[in-house]
Amino acid sequence: MRRIITVAGSLALLVGYVHSALINPIDYNAAPPNLSTVFNNSIFYTWRPKAHVLPPFGAIGDPCMHYTDPATGLFHVGYLYSGDGGNSGAAGATTDDMVTYHDVSTDPMFIRAGGINDPVAVFDGSVIPAGINGTPTLLYTSVSYLPIQWTIDYTKGSETQSLAIARDGGANFTKLTEGPVIPGPPFPVTNVTGFRDPYVFQDPKFDAALDSTNGSWYVIISGGLHGSGPSMFLFRQYSPVFRDWEYLGQWWHEPANSTWGDGTWAGRWGFNFEVGNVFSLDDEGYNTDGDIFTTNGAEWSEIPIIPQVSQFREMLWSSGNLTKAENGSVTYEPSMAGKLDWGVYAYAAAGKILPASSAASNKSGAPDRFISYIWLTGTNFGTSDFPVDQQGWSSSLLTARELSRGTIENVVDNELVNETASWRVIGRDTSSDTVTLSTLKQVIAREARTAFISNATRTFTEPDRTLSTNTNSTSTNTAFSQSPISKFFMMTASLTFPSSARTDGSLKAGFKILSSAHESTLLYYQFSNESLIIDRSNSSAVAAITPGILTNNEAGRLRLFDIRDSNGTGNGTAVETLELTVVVDHSIVELYANERFVLSTWVWSWFETSTELAFFHEGETEVVVGNVTVWEGLVDAWPGRS
Amino acid sequence: MRRIITVAGSLALLVGYVHSALINPIDYNAAPPNLSTVFNNSIFYTWRPKAHVLPPFGAIGDPCMHYTDPATGLFHVGYLYSGDGGNSGAAGATTDDMVTYHDVSTDPMFIRAGGINDPVAVFDGSVIPAGINGTPTLLYTSVSYLPIQWTIDYTKGSETQSLAIARDGGANFTKLTEGPVIPGPPFPVTNVTGFRDPYVFQDPKFDAALDSTNGSWYVIISGGLHGSGPSMFLFRQYSPVFRDWEYLGQWWHEPANSTWGDGTWAGRWGFNFEVGNVFSLDDEGYNTDGDIFTTNGAEWSEIPIIPQVSQFREMLWSSGNLTKAENGSVTYEPSMAGKLDWGVYAYAAAGKILPASSAASNKSGAPDRFISYIWLTGTNFGTSDFPVDQQGWSSSLLTARELSRGTIENVVDNELVNETASWRVIGRDTSSDTVTLSTLKQVIAREARTAFISNATRTFTEPDRTLSTNTNSTSTNTAFSQSPISKFFMMTASLTFPSSARTDGSLKAGFKILSSAHESTLLYYQFSNESLIIDRSNSSAVAAITPGILTNNEAGRLRLFDIRDSNGTGNGTAVETLELTVVVDHSIVELYANERFVLSTWVWSWFETSTELAFFHEGETEVVVGNVTVWEGLVDAWPGRS
Repeated sequence: MRRIITVAGSLALLVGYVHSALINPIDYNAAPPNLSTVFNNSIFYTWRPKAHVLPPFGAIGDPCMHYTDPATGLFHVGYLYSGDGGNSGAAGATTDDMVTYHDVSTDPMFIRAGGINDPVAVFDGSVIPAGINGTPTLLYTSVSYLPIQWTIDYTKGSETQSLAIARDGGANFTKLTEGPVIPGPPFPVTNVTGFRDPYVFQDPKFDAALDSTNGSWYVIISGGLHGSGPSMFLFRQYSPVFRDWEYLGQWWHEPANSTWGDGTWAGRWGFNFEVGNVFSLDDEGYNTDGDIFTTNGAEWSEIPIIPQVSQFREMLWSSGNLTKAENGSVTYEPSMAGKLDWGVYAYAAAGKILPASSAASNKSGAPDRFISYIWLTGTNFGTSDFPVDQQGWSSSLLTARELSRGTIENVVDNELVNETASWRVIGRDTSSDTVTLSTLKQVIAREARTAFISNATRTFTEPDRTLSTNTNSTSTNTAFSQSPISKFFMMTASLTFPSSARTDGSLKAGFKILSSAHESTLLYYQFSNESLIIDRSNSSAVAAITPGILTNNEAGRLRLFDIRDSNGTGNGTAVETLELTVVVDHSIVELYANERFVLSTWVWSWFETSTELAFFHEGETEVVVGNVTVWEGLVDAWPGRS
Repeated sequence: MRRIITVAGSLALLVGYVHSALINPIDYNAAPPNLSTVFNNSIFYTWRPKAHVLPPFGAIGDPCMHYTDPATGLFHVGYLYSGDGGNSGAAGATTDDMVTYHDVSTDPMFIRAGGINDPVAVFDGSVIPAGINGTPTLLYTSVSYLPIQWTIDYTKGSETQSLAIARDGGANFTKLTEGPVIPGPPFPVTNVTGFRDPYVFQDPKFDAALDSTNGSWYVIISGGLHGSGPSMFLFRQYSPVFRDWEYLGQWWHEPANSTWGDGTWAGRWGFNFEVGNVFSLDDEGYNTDGDIFTTNGAEWSEIPIIPQVSQFREMLWSSGNLTKAENGSVTYEPSMAGKLDWGVYAYAAAGKILPASSAASNKSGAPDRFISYIWLTGTNFGTSDFPVDQQGWSSSLLTARELSRGTIENVVDNELVNETASWRVIGRDTSSDTVTLSTLKQVIAREARTAFISNATRTFTEPDRTLSTNTNSTSTNTAFSQSPISKFFMMTASLTFPSSARTDGSLKAGFKILSSAHESTLLYYQFSNESLIIDRSNSSAVAAITPGILTNNEAGRLRLFDIRDSNGTGNGTAVETLELTVVVDHSIVELYANERFVLSTWVWSWFETSTELAFFHEGETEVVVGNVTVWEGLVDAWPGRS
């Protein structure tokens, strides 16, 4: 099963129901009804985000097919889409500032399934910005047969890779009148677990390792081999018009269901790779002279595997090195790997270079960047009973992120450092007994973060405070002196822990958000398992009676290192400060930490009053909270939508 | 352009028009009208053959997809078909005696274009009789894009090879719900001239040369490479269910537009191969221990090549040897080659083993045979203006032939023997100064020939006679003492030439057929160019006013060797006797000679009275004609059709 849900509504119906909703407004000050029984589209606005990328209505699937149009400098963000009348394909929007977006057309779908190569579906693809005749050229997975899943035998020819060319400024992509340019994995690769999501790129390191013409285009296709494990298949451009691609083997393969290290920091490689990206980053952003990074999805299940059920999906990143292979190809071995997002509903990241010459970067002065969008499924990958028809839309992309190479300096060289983990040691200073760590840095796209601040309708701060819990209490909840009046805001905070926190098994420190007497959500760090947790067990008054309003906790692992004091003495050490940024965009909650951790999920609070913020603490160890600022309002990412 | 013409009529319309024709019968005793102006289907019976394989109405294309069903022993003869309502696909009939045929269903089409793999067309294929689950399994060319021709750049993916499985006793073939099992020529073969007409076979010689598992299935796919020449691509079965095939390279390749020898005996290899077959023959018929033979079509044009115009097609055969290639594959080199049929409208032969265990062979006692059907286009491959709609059907297959290894004994070892030709020397007796030649033997399927004789409604002979032409005349035409009263008959004759005939530049000897005061057709041998000729210049009274009634001469080359007298003296030599068999089935004329020559064409005689036979002679040299027998009536090959 693929990540697209058909929404029964049409735009005309939608408008009608919205009017109904206005006439008979839903009462967010009373207990909710069973939302699976209300009219279609009547809860369209109940949880709808405003600052995120999602279609005007209908279901959004994997982000994909992004590019900067060399003719306009506009960045196009694409996504799989099930829209009006059961059509499915891919849709998109443009942005000139990474803050606001404009649908490429009234119907944003720019490619539709149903052609000769893709009678059944269009899956993910990627774009060569100056492709055939200098025009943006899409290489995408054209689907002829379903079902497709790593848990069942592969239907030969079900996924092929085909070309389409941008027309009308990207409002339409015209499929070439020729068969798939990559009709399948070449013999003897026969029973794959998947063969999709082509990602095109250029990279001089690949050129050098493969003795390629400089500037060659490559494509990696994600999948795997039954009985062997997940793989990425590498091809090199052979014809100038991208009609033929030379197969160069599986440049990356992992044993089936294996883990990175003990699995603590990057989960499982699983049985099948999806949505693989490969790119090079330096400290500033995208740079082909930088280090090689990847992002990819990994699919797996517990044994025994149930056919057509993929229990788990991981959204991973890694970084490592290319090695020339004996057969003239290259192989890749990670030296660090982690989760791009720890949210179990966050998946299918699709990144793309955003060049300094793009319209947005021109305005913001940003260098070449690698921007990644991640999908947040609202239906647990189509398996939950979430009232999609009643909502009239489903799922969203998360806030665009800038990826770069992150560096953590002055880290005490102790047992916290030496692990097969989501960082690697790149320098060691024996005089100060410190190491320098490298990792993946992830931050909100700078323009969006700036806009959330500058466009705020209300900004308020909390004074620094020390959190503690009276020995008679199990926990402390101290309300903010001010809370937002809406469910749209960004908040930052710094939490400073004493070294004793490491041994306080009961310590939890963080915040309560989207809170009222009826429902609330906890965000906190817990030293006992080095985890940031979003506790949704009381998040939604809706959950009690409406199916599909999931309330499972979300958690991710973040290690706070010991940092050598920078006071010059070189002796003192302190636990690394936990720097949090929380974005709440109605039902979407994104929790960023220390520029190297993200955990995103849905919080389906119901009550209009569930906007309160509070501090949260449990345990014996005091925690200092500072730099608490709330910017309320976010931005309207879709000024052109009526 | 492919070899299928859509016929506008439907069965209902057809029946209606036939009634019209009966009410207002066409007068075959008067000069014909312009037939392109008459009602559709009104000349349905004017030229319709009775003993040949062709569909009940509509256009027949390439023969293909033959097999003997192991469950029934019935031999299935298939052909491309454009039938009712513009449907196209392949249709077929069964035979248990190689004489009479039964459509596989009322609508004989057993596979239709329009599926996921073949949205545009179904092209030729071949059948593994005991394929998937022991069921007849078709591997065919599934077409997604047109146009396809060797004169234009190849549209990638336009021709793929897909599977379908027999149901309902072969009345339907169900396509597998999977993509093409051979999606195209593997990289780096990219710009092919064609890639179609898969021919499946087993052969222990291939197994040995390729170190294959005994009994491996192979498939050859016909085509070529732009700029390089025609090729056949070889694949070997990889999976037991025929899902995957291992590419073993171009087992046969010829330089573009080259010839066999000087081109006298086998025309041109051309630019593109089509409908390639490979099989092994001994003196009796099909035997995998025999010599390797091939049949194939070759396409070419005169320079400059006009895009989308293939001027010429050759229907060739060859025989030669396999050589292990350095890359572990095999290559093939012919040591003799010829024309399977010299008629310019005879093309696209498709052969198949007919096992001794088949129903027909069981009855006739025949050993394993290789049976080939050849297409006879009635529209010059769709380029003529023949009144197809008015006729309601188009084209036919020729009478089924048995192919075997032919031997010519006691051939005088002179300059007539030593040539790159359609024979090869396999023995040399220096004592008698003779050689033994090997060639391809072709005869009418034994059951059909026997039936033409045993079912004859009238049989008559002519006394032996010597043909000569008075020095005052240019030619002699002596009417037979009896002639057929219909246009359905088989005739045999032996022509004996003195050695002086070889130097008589004016000598022509043969017959006048389908003759009346208004029209007649000459068949004769002409020593000056060692050719058998069918002179159609006066064949049809229709030709003068109806377009598309072609009147070009047809000619083929046959060498009559010098044969050492078999009287035991070992000294005398004589010109090999010309042994002719002529089959006239209304408009189809097939001229067989010496079991190694066939020339087939259309003769569209009009007048009811054009049934006369006569001897024909020109030149100074007397020719003795003997063994003249005419069997009139042939057979009704379609007893089940109303």
